[in-house]
Amino acid sequence: MAGNSIGERFVVTSFGESHGRCVGVVIDGCPAGLPLSEEDVQPLLDLRRPGQSLVASQRREEDRVEILSGVFNGFTTGAPIAMVVWNKDVDSRSYKRLLETPRPGHADYFARVKYGGFNDWRGGGRFSGRITTGFVMAGAVAIKLLRVTLGTEVLAYVKRIDGVEARELPVDAIRAKRYSNDLRCPDEEAAERMRQVVLEARGSGDSVGSLVECLVLNVPPGLGEPVFSSLDSDLARALLSIPAVKGIEFGAGFGVVNSRGSLNNDPLGLVDGRVVPVTNNAGGIVGGLSTGREIVVRVAFKPPASIALPQRTLNVRTMSEEEVVVTGRHDPVIGPRAVPVVESVVAMVLADHAVRAGVIPPVLRTGKDLVLPDSGEATRA
Amino acid sequence: MAGNSIGERFVVTSFGESHGRCVGVVIDGCPAGLPLSEEDVQPLLDLRRPGQSLVASQRREEDRVEILSGVFNGFTTGAPIAMVVWNKDVDSRSYKRLLETPRPGHADYFARVKYGGFNDWRGGGRFSGRITTGFVMAGAVAIKLLRVTLGTEVLAYVKRIDGVEARELPVDAIRAKRYSNDLRCPDEEAAERMRQVVLEARGSGDSVGSLVECLVLNVPPGLGEPVFSSLDSDLARALLSIPAVKGIEFGAGFGVVNSRGSLNNDPLGLVDGRVVPVTNNAGGIVGGLSTGREIVVRVAFKPPASIALPQRTLNVRTMSEEEVVVTGRHDPVIGPRAVPVVESVVAMVLADHAVRAGVIPPVLRTGKDLVLPDSGEATRA
Amino acid sequence: MAGNSIGERFVVTSFGESHGRCVGVVIDGCPAGLPLSEEDVQPLLDLRRPGQSLVASQRREEDRVEILSGVFNGFTTGAPIAMVVWNKDVDSRSYKRLLETPRPGHADYFARVKYGGFNDWRGGGRFSGRITTGFVMAGAVAIKLLRVTLGTEVLAYVKRIDGVEARELPVDAIRAKRYSNDLRCPDEEAAERMRQVVLEARGSGDSVGSLVECLVLNVPPGLGEPVFSSLDSDLARALLSIPAVKGIEFGAGFGVVNSRGSLNNDPLGLVDGRVVPVTNNAGGIVGGLSTGREIVVRVAFKPPASIALPQRTLNVRTMSEEEVVVTGRHDPVIGPRAVPVVESVVAMVLADHAVRAGVIPPVLRTGKDLVLPDSGEATRA
Amino acid sequence: MAGNSIGERFVVTSFGESHGRCVGVVIDGCPAGLPLSEEDVQPLLDLRRPGQSLVASQRREEDRVEILSGVFNGFTTGAPIAMVVWNKDVDSRSYKRLLETPRPGHADYFARVKYGGFNDWRGGGRFSGRITTGFVMAGAVAIKLLRVTLGTEVLAYVKRIDGVEARELPVDAIRAKRYSNDLRCPDEEAAERMRQVVLEARGSGDSVGSLVECLVLNVPPGLGEPVFSSLDSDLARALLSIPAVKGIEFGAGFGVVNSRGSLNNDPLGLVDGRVVPVTNNAGGIVGGLSTGREIVVRVAFKPPASIALPQRTLNVRTMSEEEVVVTGRHDPVIGPRAVPVVESVVAMVLADHAVRAGVIPPVLRTGKDLVLPDSGEATRA
Repeated sequence: MAGNSIGERFVVTSFGESHGRCVGVVIDGCPAGLPLSEEDVQPLLDLRRPGQSLVASQRREEDRVEILSGVFNGFTTGAPIAMVVWNKDVDSRSYKRLLETPRPGHADYFARVKYGGFNDWRGGGRFSGRITTGFVMAGAVAIKLLRVTLGTEVLAYVKRIDGVEARELPVDAIRAKRYSNDLRCPDEEAAERMRQVVLEARGSGDSVGSLVECLVLNVPPGLGEPVFSSLDSDLARALLSIPAVKGIEFGAGFGVVNSRGSLNNDPLGLVDGRVVPVTNNAGGIVGGLSTGREIVVRVAFKPPASIALPQRTLNVRTMSEEEVVVTGRHDPVIGPRAVPVVESVVAMVLADHAVRAGVIPPVLRTGKDLVLPDSGEATRA
Repeated sequence: MAGNSIGERFVVTSFGESHGRCVGVVIDGCPAGLPLSEEDVQPLLDLRRPGQSLVASQRREEDRVEILSGVFNGFTTGAPIAMVVWNKDVDSRSYKRLLETPRPGHADYFARVKYGGFNDWRGGGRFSGRITTGFVMAGAVAIKLLRVTLGTEVLAYVKRIDGVEARELPVDAIRAKRYSNDLRCPDEEAAERMRQVVLEARGSGDSVGSLVECLVLNVPPGLGEPVFSSLDSDLARALLSIPAVKGIEFGAGFGVVNSRGSLNNDPLGLVDGRVVPVTNNAGGIVGGLSTGREIVVRVAFKPPASIALPQRTLNVRTMSEEEVVVTGRHDPVIGPRAVPVVESVVAMVLADHAVRAGVIPPVLRTGKDLVLPDSGEATRA
Repeated sequence: MAGNSIGERFVVTSFGESHGRCVGVVIDGCPAGLPLSEEDVQPLLDLRRPGQSLVASQRREEDRVEILSGVFNGFTTGAPIAMVVWNKDVDSRSYKRLLETPRPGHADYFARVKYGGFNDWRGGGRFSGRITTGFVMAGAVAIKLLRVTLGTEVLAYVKRIDGVEARELPVDAIRAKRYSNDLRCPDEEAAERMRQVVLEARGSGDSVGSLVECLVLNVPPGLGEPVFSSLDSDLARALLSIPAVKGIEFGAGFGVVNSRGSLNNDPLGLVDGRVVPVTNNAGGIVGGLSTGREIVVRVAFKPPASIALPQRTLNVRTMSEEEVVVTGRHDPVIGPRAVPVVESVVAMVLADHAVRAGVIPPVLRTGKDLVLPDSGEATRA
Repeated sequence: MAGNSIGERFVVTSFGESHGRCVGVVIDGCPAGLPLSEEDVQPLLDLRRPGQSLVASQRREEDRVEILSGVFNGFTTGAPIAMVVWNKDVDSRSYKRLLETPRPGHADYFARVKYGGFNDWRGGGRFSGRITTGFVMAGAVAIKLLRVTLGTEVLAYVKRIDGVEARELPVDAIRAKRYSNDLRCPDEEAAERMRQVVLEARGSGDSVGSLVECLVLNVPPGLGEPVFSSLDSDLARALLSIPAVKGIEFGAGFGVVNSRGSLNNDPLGLVDGRVVPVTNNAGGIVGGLSTGREIVVRVAFKPPASIALPQRTLNVRTMSEEEVVVTGRHDPVIGPRAVPVVESVVAMVLADHAVRAGVIPPVLRTGKDLVLPDSGEATRA
């Protein structure tokens, strides 16, 4: 496979550019029989959409998903599911002059080196956060597939922005409140302080970093294909495909460096009649396999590279130092808009592993949400 | 990868259904810097289109390709190239009753078994020859890539229909005349007799089988990745993905069964200063590697399964025998319309192997058709 | 994947050279819980081994399989299964002079071009038929897996050598007699005439072509992953990875070219209570999916390229024409020794597709041959 | 691919178990023409070997690599390179009773769930750190390939153990001293304090966590295949395949959460005549592409799960709580022994990407270490 596909059995292929005609995705290997329509995908896209508040970019995108294939009579068919969002609110004028003065922190120049100058540089092209629109379309399908078949639930939220960290909250509170404010932080008091930090940074022409935590509940034990397709390996790979991610950790994460085996080991025990680790320093994954406990993964997002402050860079034509000012509409922080993206990417990987392990079958025949189509009754055994 | 992708470095992913919204394709891994527009793709699509003569189906499809991504300023960018043809002339009414009485020779019933009745059965869905529209879109890109970079040329034509076989013709005649008649046979006299056979079969409500031969000229030696991605292995895999293919042979093909080593071995010699086999019983491939001689591969197409004659089948609801009459517009022979499809599929495989072998680089910088885009001059080394 | 692996879920990786230390194979993805030992693999290897009669090469190889990993307490563990056969009876002296005068019909020269002269040319290296020893090791595991879980049976035999063709025989006769003579032909009278043809060719320093037919019984319907991993696509790819194969056909095969739809279409009907095609011109595969009928595939083997007769070739150092005489021990016909290889390769593909389809689960827990290991009782649910 | 392979063009397949016959690896896709022998692999294996000091496990393993295929006349041939280390010093007695009382922090129980009790549990089987012996064998080849062709150098070292962190040191000091003590820490003063921490933990029957930093020098710009095979994505995937890794970060890593765009952005500039970022908060990777600056990645290792202290766990037969004491020979800290493993895994990924990008060709013909073999002169162009 070239680089724009991920997964072995639930395979997602990304296409489209920031300022091209569309952003799209093809899912190959989604089991047949999943009830699906645009209404299942649009809400998650809406949560990702910019232009929602002062915290995020002011670009206005309608972002209506269209399913082009793979769905018939309201169900997935087992054939590839192609989906697109057409790009509408595009203004590429400000980008052309950046060819000579590549923006610090962006991939502009390195992409030009790699693709010999042929890459679509408008709006960052394939390196724009807009590409994650495709991740969310695929993720919405994966999320529904996991929920309907296994009851698995993926919950991400903003854990920290700069110095402000959300308190530990029970899962119910996280589920209920993470999308209740535009910081995507279920701790409303912390959210309010985060807002101040973001607005302050934005006001000074700057941007801030952020940390997103993702929990996955009701993960069957034994998912993961060691040694190189371990569950944490594949999650990390997918999460690092989101632009601006610089670090990934599971469970106790980097805290393990300062820990001891006697503290960090999770003993097995009986919880609700199931044999699981009674503590969860492992973050739900041991030896590359899911343990049956919730997966806990944290993702570090750098401050957006596009800032209003003037920055030093090299003019790569004249080879002299120059100042660049990035205009246009940009996010002062990534985490809040990345929350549905993280959920999507995590769900894609879990759906793939659940299909690989046979935990989700290639044809769905049962489940409370599942109704068989009329036309199928004659021949289905 | 799930089943709808092929290739390792020039990766083609197919999507869409016969009577769905569109048929489409994504190419991931096409080198950057190839001049490309819809005008490069449309002509080959036009050659595949039905409704062109009495020989082929009367379905009218406009089949205008749209490139959705991966092309910028007239060149490929190195990003995925998504292309679609929107379905327009669709009439699915006749298919629903076939759910109970699956058509002999079609995949209807086996698809229903595999996908639990959820598959899109309209017009055969994913099992329709219409899916090859996507193959042709991808193939047109591969054909241009091979021609511009290596001078490789792919020439297919109808070799035989029922008892009528085209004479051996020089390559120049094949190149010049294979698309000059709607039989896609460069031997015009044979073409005329083939036409009579086809019209006679059509007149009696029947269909006929056909044989397509494909030559590939100017293939660099050493393409192929033994043992399991041998060049002939990958060509055979791709060709058998075309609906209705039942056999593949290279060079002397099945004739080798009745041959002797002393006759069949191709001795090496000097031809135009190159060390190549002086005969070509091998069909251009030995040990899974291209030899530098033209590739010769033949593909057997069964008679189209859809015929006007009444046929016996099983009613899978009542489990009693029944007669089925397939209405609708269908081709009486596959070979002529398959000629551009065979060329496309062969080119896809060769493009993939040329990229894998490094014979085609990831960025095209030279060559007579290649002009660098304005915007790239500043930074390209 | 590079070229030496095949399969998506039951993945076979080949390694080793004809005159290197060993020939080996790794199977990744074999379900856990299959009873397995060297005794399951050795018999098929023995059937492939040369030196068994005048018909085949006189090279003496002990060819004892050693399982290096992936089996514990008599069962597969789900971990990669590595197996090797150590090379012993190796005499490479005759090959060095062939570097200057490449043998007609062999890959010697093209391999040197591809690998820059670094390839191991001794005994043909990776291009030797000896590499199929690895295919047989993997195939023996696949054959057992298919038999134990699905009752699927793979039966190949020599159908034709030069002008002599075996009569149509019932499956029981094929099963009982195909390995009863060293021609691997269940029609004993034809076998005797084949022997004369082979001995006559051998006597004159020549070699002959051959045709192997393979039947697969008890194939569940719906195997195959259209469009590019169709069952026939993947079978053809794998079969063309066997050295010296020049053609593949399914069911009526190339005969379809001269057929009509009304004759070639297989109507559905009830056979033993199952809905299957009542005729089998399709050879058990329609639309890339298994139909539930036996798979019928035929494989054309060219006459072995190594013959005793002097042959013309090019001296690639002096660039002048020269005569080459191939000494050493070689087979006068490939089909008989290829019978277990064809069975192996076909089984590998079917095992992969059965695992992909979920028809064979990742852990085997049931079946008459299956006994659970002692140590597992405590924790297995 | 199933889970035990990694890479697209330089593909590494792992096999073997901790207490089985061997641990091994197959590399498929290594370019032809690399000078290679066991002497290139053994030194890195020796650096990984246990039994070297009080800091590490007392298990004595000779760990002599044997190259089984893919090397001829002292050069790689382009064919798969199989390598094994035979297991010798194996004592499995202590593991059987752990079936009932799975060790806290180990994968024992989850592996049993996944593989239905069929997995080889001796010494942890596939989940043992011993499997990384195979990573090192493959890594030694990748390291040499990168060095010879690109001058790329991979340098890992222990950055932190518990509260002790190594000072920032110049690259020359890291290169010279990282293997000079058994802590694998180039800051000798910190190394001494780390030793005290480790010995203290060991003395109390406990274990400690550790942090390994890896630098990669002379990385060509533009490596990485966005969006899903980004260079950081693939590095993270590979690194998380090493047992006990719980976090990965690049460059400023998790520090970005508390940073600002104006501080974190790396401006472009001219360094030694090359256009590169003048600071390196990105850790050498932006937008998934290498920037031409050194790659900086840090890996968090948990404290080894095997500790001498008695631990609470569940007896999964009686389903009652029980105490387990893990006997046997175990490492009190992972980082020091993981240093060559991290280098190996990073090199595998970079070699793969360099081959994918065409930066390393499929056949090596030049370079100071490269001498052409005698036998190749006649035919190489």
